Order: sequence, then C-alpha cells, then structure tokens
Amino acid sequence: MPTQDEIRAAAGRIAPHIRRTPVIRLAPAETGLEHPLVLKLEHLQVTGSFKPRGAFNRMLSAAVPEAGVVAASGGNHGLAVAHAARSLGIRAEIFVPEITPEAKRARIAATGATLTVGGAAYDQAREASEARAAETGALIVHAYDQPEILAGQGTIGMELEEDAPELTHVVVAAGGGGLYGGIASWYDGRVGMVIAEPEQCPTLMVAGLMGQPTDVPAGGIAADSLGARRVGDLAFAVMMEQGGRAVALADEAIRTAQRWLWDRLRIAAEPGGAAALAAVLSGSWTPPAGARVGVVVCGANCDPGSVAG
Amino acid sequence: MPTQDEIRAAAGRIAPHIRRTPVIRLAPAETGLEHPLVLKLEHLQVTGSFKPRGAFNRMLSAAVPEAGVVAASGGNHGLAVAHAARSLGIRAEIFVPEITPEAKRARIAATGATLTVGGAAYDQAREASEARAAETGALIVHAYDQPEILAGQGTIGMELEEDAPELTHVVVAAGGGGLYGGIASWYDGRVGMVIAEPEQCPTLMVAGLMGQPTDVPAGGIAADSLGARRVGDLAFAVMMEQGGRAVALADEAIRTAQRWLWDRLRIAAEPGGAAALAAVLSGSWTPPAGARVGVVVCGANCDPGSVAG
Repeated sequence: MPTQDEIRAAAGRIAPHIRRTPVIRLAPAETGLEHPLVLKLEHLQVTGSFKPRGAFNRMLSAAVPEAGVVAASGGNHGLAVAHAARSLGIRAEIFVPEITPEAKRARIAATGATLTVGGAAYDQAREASEARAAETGALIVHAYDQPEILAGQGTIGMELEEDAPELTHVVVAAGGGGLYGGIASWYDGRVGMVIAEPEQCPTLMVAGLMGQPTDVPAGGIAADSLGARRVGDLAFAVMMEQGGRAVALADEAIRTAQRWLWDRLRIAAEPGGAAALAAVLSGSWTPPAGARVGVVVCGANCDPGSVAG
Repeated sequence: MPTQDEIRAAAGRIAPHIRRTPVIRLAPAETGLEHPLVLKLEHLQVTGSFKPRGAFNRMLSAAVPEAGVVAASGGNHGLAVAHAARSLGIRAEIFVPEITPEAKRARIAATGATLTVGGAAYDQAREASEARAAETGALIVHAYDQPEILAGQGTIGMELEEDAPELTHVVVAAGGGGLYGGIASWYDGRVGMVIAEPEQCPTLMVAGLMGQPTDVPAGGIAADSLGARRVGDLAFAVMMEQGGRAVALADEAIRTAQRWLWDRLRIAAEPGGAAALAAVLSGSWTPPAGARVGVVVCGANCDPGSVAG
C-alpha cells in the first residue's frame, strides 16, 4: 500500500492537472441522520470523476513508450486516461464494454483517443486491452490495480483530512477498490473506512468473506462505474491490513441517493457517484454515536436528465 | 446599504438554516482565459439558489404577524420564502408569474405554501402579492428591495472573501439587484464589482445610464430568475455609491455558459445561475492584467435534462 509520502508525492505530481475539489457540510437536520455529514465533491473533478488523479499519477511516474497508453474501463477511468493522454501529448487506446453509456463513450471519443467498444462488461474490455498492449508495447494504465493508481486516488484522503480533520469515518464506493485502497492507505487507521458496493457487484465484501479476491457477478445500475468482476490485489491487501466495513446496496437504495442529491443539493451524480451516500441514507451502515462521517461523491458522468424524479 | 456589521449579524442569524457553500478554483488553462477563476458554488445552497440567505434574514429580523408572509418571485425567491416559512412554522403565500417553470412551481407547492400563478412576468406577480398583503396584513418578504434582504445576500461576499481573499473582481448576476447590492456592500470597494445582466433585462445598466431606476422590458432565457422590471432602489443606491461595471449578455452567451458548466464541471445551473460566468467566458467583460476573478454560480432550479449539449 502507498505510504503518506508516496501520496504526497503523487499530489505534487498531479497538481497542475487536477482540481482541488471542495467539501460541503450538512447538518443532521438536513439529512434526518444523527450525525453531521461532510461531502467531498469529487464529481467536480476534471472529467467528472476522481479517476484523473490515479491516471495522471501513473502516466507521470512512468516512461511512456511511443505506442502510448492503453486502458480498459467502464468509462470513467477510460475518460480520465484519454484526457490525461491528450493533456500530455500521448497516444491512447481505450477499451470499454457494451454497458458503457453513451455519455461516457462520447466524451472519450471527443478527446481524440482510439475507442474500442466490445464485450459484455469491464472484464472483457480489460482482456482486450491487455491483448492490445501485448501487441503494441503500450503502457497499461490499470483502472485500479497499480500502486501509482492507489497513490493518486489517495490524494483525495489527503485533501479530505485537511478540509475536514474532524472525521471519524469515511465512506467510499468500490468496484475494483482503487479509490478505497488509496484513501484507506492515506488515513492508515485514523478513520473507520466504510466500503459501499452494489449488491450485484460486492467485490470487497466477497473477498473479505472468502479470504481472497474472488470473482463475483458484475451487474446492477452502477455497473458502468463499479462493475469490476473482482477486487484488485492491492485493494485487497489494504483491506486485509486496514480493515473496512463493506456494505452491500440494493439498486433502489443507490437510485434513492442519486435522486436525493439532485433534490436536496442540485448535484447530478451518476449511480456509482451516489453509492457511498446510499450506504448512509439507507441505514445500511449505522455509524456509532458521536461519529463525524465523510462521504465521497465520486462521479457525475451521466445524462443529467436521468437524475431527477 | 448594509454595513459589514449588519452583514455579520445576518450571517449569525441565518447560520442554522443555510449552508456554507464552497468555492472551486479553475486555472487559466481550464478556461482559456488569462486569469484564474474562483467559482462560488451557491447553487448548492438550500433550495438550489442563494435566495434563502435574504429570506431567512428578513423573516428572523421581523415580528411575523399571524397572517404569515407574502412574497412574489420568478420562482427562486418564492421557493426560499416558502422553505423558510415551513422551517420556522409560518404561513406563506407565494405569487409567481406564468413564465415560472414547472421545476420551480412544483418545489414551492411541495413546501405547503399557498401558490398563486398569474400575470405575464415578475412585475404582475409583485402587484398581486402587494394587494394580497394589504388584505391580510401579512409581512412582505421582497425579492430584492429590503435592507434585510441585501444583508442576507451580502453574507455570500463575507464567505467569498474568507475563502478567496486574493480576489480583485467579483462577477454576479442581477435582476432586481439584491445579490449585487448585498455583495457590493460587503466588499465596500475592496474588489471591482461586475454585474451580469441579460440583454433583454438590463435593469442596472439602464438605471446607470438614465441616472435612476427605470423600467426595462423583462425577457429572455433567464427571465424566471433575472426578470425584474427595474432595479431595486437599494441596489441602485449601492451602485451609485460603489460603482460596478454592468455587462449585457445575449441569451446565447448565457446558454453557452450553462452548457460549459455541465460539460466541464458537471454543474447543472439554470440560465440565471450561469449568467455571471457568461460575462467572463464570452469576453463581454475583460478583466485587467493580474486580475483574480470570483464568479457566483447562484442557482440550479431547472430541469437537469435542459443543461446538456
């Protein structure tokens, strides 16, 4: 797992390319909960999700070959890599599965990256991307399972602790676990980590129960952002060392949180971006008395018309 | 015009009821401008616009009669008053014109306030609201032209100066001028004020040219939030004392800024909420060399599906 120094180094490396995203505080009366909430508004990040933090850190840490970079993604990581590649003057090939929504495909294509759509879910896109990298020699920028990716995502923890030092718990969504792994590495036990996963894609929960990364079905309304088939080895190692309470969420709880964010805050988050809040609002996780809870709103790459009602 | 002490007192009075909204910084490379931008994300405020600051301040500063409060509005102020009334256990009657969009009407009605829709534009709703207040004895909570309203909106300036003390200029949208009047009063000359108005509703620009508040046509895509027929007397007095550069914007420039906010920041602002940014992005106002520019994003009460591409 990345050290605080490695995360600080990542923060310095990526600073010219990313936004320092703000937090907003919600009093208990606003949520009906017994504790205040601090939302980290990471959906305001460049490209509309947290993913550029890891992508830039990986690409700025390695010697990128002439063939450029290759990435597979449900969409957000692919867009982040495509954006970073354009910013840095690097070629990029992005592989996404058929479930990737048009809002994400169009944004990737608009960067000038080569976009290949194929396979049912993230896992098939990952296989295609690895085969392509073996052909061309391009640098693989993994969606979650590389140390530089965790260090990049860990900068969210660094910022959150600076802006909200009072937190006792931090809730994050997880698919492959890069966001969780990075933030848990930053905090190194100073907060309790809560891992929000779709019921139809509980990679960390199942890995914890089985004692090893284990394939799960990858479905549900957040599958285009949280639809990894299994947790990354790195995030699994972090969970074994740091702990973390995994919470499985029904699609309806995620959808309710997504509507709540629009209704109460005019935030148009995608389902995966609302999943961490869903863990709190649904009562799937109940914090202890006196808790101060941080929630990462991590993505908004959706059709904005889909968030209301 | 309200003093800094009056604005600080307003901030204390309304603090239990409103959110401290955050800022986000954008580097020149992100906008193509020569100066950095600081966006004050006031669309994240309770009820989706800045209006509760003034509404709560007015209602907490006065003895509210049994008949409650009456307000007229293009929608945002009416929603703020209706929300504040429910929070404080007060009766509210809200008058809006026919141009008020369904997204705003439905939210007002959902608070339990009595909603009356009638007249072509804000001015007719205001007349109806004043007639009703004369009948019932209810307290009028004006959309912009009362000292407590200016003091409440001025708390945005107080927060912005705390969070971004480096600013040299602040750009705000104006209809009746309550937001401008409050923020300009806070700054009291410490920044240059830029007033973004729709070409079809240039209340402050015309008042400046004519030397007095003067009726203008009130139309265009932002008329449901910036569609006052003339500047308030208080905001006019502030402008005479403090100055401020008024900029008139074509609907297309406002629409472009609205799309830009979604495309680049996943912010789903309403047209009036994007108008201040439009003044900057369109080049209608060009800041001097070395400027540090703050922009207030002041509302997001729209159909979210209307903001994209």
